[in-house]
Amino acid sequence: MKRIVVIGGVAAGLKAASKARRCDPKAQITVVEKGELISYGACGMPYYVAGDVDNIQQLMMTPAGAVRNPAFFKNVKDIDVKTKTLATKINRERKTVTVKNLETGEEAELPYDKLVIATGASPVKPPLPGIELANIFQMWHPNDAKAVREGLERGKFSRAVIIGAGLVGIEMAEALKMWEIDVSVVEMKDQVFPAFLDQEIAGAVEKYAREKGIHIYTGEKVERFNGDGSVREVVTDKRVLPADLVILAIGVRPNVELAKDAGLQLGVTGAIAVNEHMQTSDPDIYAGGDCVENTNIITGRKVYAPMGSTANKHGRVIGENLCGAKAKFRGVLNTVVVKVMDLTVGKVGLTERDAKELGYEYVTALVAGHDRPHYMPGAKLMSLKIVVDANTRRVLGAQAFGEAEIAKRIDVIATAITLGGTVDDLFDIDLAYAPPFSSPIDNVAVAANAVMNKLVGKLKGISPLEAKEKLNCEDIVFLDVRVARRM
Amino acid sequence: MKRIVVIGGVAAGLKAASKARRCDPKAQITVVEKGELISYGACGMPYYVAGDVDNIQQLMMTPAGAVRNPAFFKNVKDIDVKTKTLATKINRERKTVTVKNLETGEEAELPYDKLVIATGASPVKPPLPGIELANIFQMWHPNDAKAVREGLERGKFSRAVIIGAGLVGIEMAEALKMWEIDVSVVEMKDQVFPAFLDQEIAGAVEKYAREKGIHIYTGEKVERFNGDGSVREVVTDKRVLPADLVILAIGVRPNVELAKDAGLQLGVTGAIAVNEHMQTSDPDIYAGGDCVENTNIITGRKVYAPMGSTANKHGRVIGENLCGAKAKFRGVLNTVVVKVMDLTVGKVGLTERDAKELGYEYVTALVAGHDRPHYMPGAKLMSLKIVVDANTRRVLGAQAFGEAEIAKRIDVIATAITLGGTVDDLFDIDLAYAPPFSSPIDNVAVAANAVMNKLVGKLKGISPLEAKEKLNCEDIVFLDVRVARRM
Repeated sequence: MKRIVVIGGVAAGLKAASKARRCDPKAQITVVEKGELISYGACGMPYYVAGDVDNIQQLMMTPAGAVRNPAFFKNVKDIDVKTKTLATKINRERKTVTVKNLETGEEAELPYDKLVIATGASPVKPPLPGIELANIFQMWHPNDAKAVREGLERGKFSRAVIIGAGLVGIEMAEALKMWEIDVSVVEMKDQVFPAFLDQEIAGAVEKYAREKGIHIYTGEKVERFNGDGSVREVVTDKRVLPADLVILAIGVRPNVELAKDAGLQLGVTGAIAVNEHMQTSDPDIYAGGDCVENTNIITGRKVYAPMGSTANKHGRVIGENLCGAKAKFRGVLNTVVVKVMDLTVGKVGLTERDAKELGYEYVTALVAGHDRPHYMPGAKLMSLKIVVDANTRRVLGAQAFGEAEIAKRIDVIATAITLGGTVDDLFDIDLAYAPPFSSPIDNVAVAANAVMNKLVGKLKGISPLEAKEKLNCEDIVFLDVRVARRM
Repeated sequence: MKRIVVIGGVAAGLKAASKARRCDPKAQITVVEKGELISYGACGMPYYVAGDVDNIQQLMMTPAGAVRNPAFFKNVKDIDVKTKTLATKINRERKTVTVKNLETGEEAELPYDKLVIATGASPVKPPLPGIELANIFQMWHPNDAKAVREGLERGKFSRAVIIGAGLVGIEMAEALKMWEIDVSVVEMKDQVFPAFLDQEIAGAVEKYAREKGIHIYTGEKVERFNGDGSVREVVTDKRVLPADLVILAIGVRPNVELAKDAGLQLGVTGAIAVNEHMQTSDPDIYAGGDCVENTNIITGRKVYAPMGSTANKHGRVIGENLCGAKAKFRGVLNTVVVKVMDLTVGKVGLTERDAKELGYEYVTALVAGHDRPHYMPGAKLMSLKIVVDANTRRVLGAQAFGEAEIAKRIDVIATAITLGGTVDDLFDIDLAYAPPFSSPIDNVAVAANAVMNKLVGKLKGISPLEAKEKLNCEDIVFLDVRVARRM
């Protein structure tokens, strides 16, 4: 009887355990989780804070309404889940994991034939003065979300400052804005979503967020927090922002100590290195989820890209391989989609900045248009930028924003990139067309056409940033040749 | 100076002309159109009838609000568009087209260097007794839509019968239901959407439409129309349906007479045969849009698949080639998406029935689930069926329905099929994930997983139709092993 031990009971760990159970009905499967809760949808926390989700428990339920607690995993899947149990040491020679019951302090050694490390990540907590003040939260555990929501419900918070304009930061800005409180976002870099948007796209998103009443301060560094027990002010290098609620959202770091102490190889990103089968440098130890590094499918480079969707894929691949399969995880495209009020922002593959840094010769096009025929009610504008390798014509990446159906276009391009598609392929796809859903020539094809025209020299464009710069020159005439209405 | 003549001024024709103008600023480009209107969005007509679109003129406007009339094409693109002008003969030896002014009766001969045939299609009008009665419409020209809408506005119609449960038929059923009148659909085949849905999917769609108050009679043949000047009854082989409005939507046939008379080759489908450059059997004559046949990308077989999206692609390819390029049109996947009240139904590639008929060894999976985490407000159920080649593992097709975001999943699979993707690829794609848009494991990946499990023998399924059949047997025990709520 095979003994499988999994360290970490959220996404990748429990997915691996569940998949292993389906492949091997006889294996003894044990999952240890240091926290009290398991298998929670952490990505749903901003929507719980916003009030879209009534009860935090819902993030831990199956669609049928069963709570995914240890009893559920025992009864339904015959998986032993030990919560409040910390794995303190991996003993690779003896093939055991030392675990500690965090309630009783009791220690035990769990023998394994195959081990899975799914220790996740932890939010970065900058060592700034005042960081320990009350009402400074990291949005990483359901308890954080609960505390913030309860405070909002009791009217405790009226001025929130979010540190970091990445995914969690902006999702939380939206969530807090739902409570009609004052919301500010402070970002050290000179744009929102610095990790995955080009500057002109970020600028448009920033403009939208500001119009919706979210204050955004980019290029500003937080220096300290002032307060009297509870936070009262956020002090940046440029201003003092009053605040009774602070959300730290400056990123996460993989939890690698256990793996490192066991002598497992870490990768260039600092996360645990795994091969395409999700095996660590010890073939009996797999790792997945937010604690490992991934391979970017386009560049072949290692990237740190913690995502719930990726963690679940890791889990499935690991689960199969625990049972002797040789399943592979192909890698990631650093795909992102995020809602900001009614705006959707999406990205897949390389940004223009990425392409430039990596030395690609590339062509981009940024096209704006309706997401369906303009005469249809509900037609919304979207802007779509694609980045194409000028030599191979392969699609390298895309960014899009608008109140339109953005995720669809990003997913189409993600699919094309995964399969090595070219800009010509993007034009060819027989996409589903009907007026409630899209235009006869979809935005993706329009963007592809623009790049194709540029590649043969039929079209030359300038970026919004260049246009803005030129508009500031005195000797530039700006000629609007669009067709007037009702000519 | 190159002379380009285009016969037909709706989608493919005007797209070809416009693209040719962009490539060749000097060419003399003439478009002849037998009707009064040009460049109209025929696909938008059901939404005009429904009242979603205020004015039929909107279907002929650019997004900026300019009407796409002959003056627009002359002023903006220097294209001569002659409306109410019928092309009566192509003289291939002299390289001229004989045209007739339908107002004056005047004839003329237009010389061409390159000719484009974009004569479109015409709705099939069955020679049934009573077919000439008033208030029996074909939904093919904006004038049809106008007449129906005006009648509805004046309260003239209270009982509509639609003949044909294909795209136009069902879109019109929805449109008419918006006016809260009695709507029936009569379909000769034994299911709705007989051309592109498998029976169990069609059954679910039918159930939904019935729940929304649309009467659906499948497997029924219309025999005659009774009335006194205006239609009063539709008589089928099974019943008599009172009706004061009838919509004929039993399909369209390509307008090929002109091409046939000129000795151009027709294809196996009866539509004009073209090569991958959209050239007819005469290399100086191109054809595109609803009058030509297409190649199915998966099977390589010729199909007749008139679609506005395809016509526009044809137009672009023809326009490029008119200027000496060698652009190719790859083919179609017979992709379809249609809205039925709040339900969306989509399809791409081969149905299971197609796969069976074509002799594929295939595996299917039909999975149901939410389109995003179930805890999110707005999460909707969707069912997705995929058909996969059991030998090559290549994806052959998909069908989906639900109140969820169906088009996105269909488009992802369309992209995968276009690029020769396998079921394994479907699992690998790094699709955009965030709770407002999708689950960490998207429905597409869930379906792919189910097929992968079936392919290795880990899962065996039966279709809803088989299940229903078994439920009718006395010696069958049906065991529901789903997890109960709040266990």
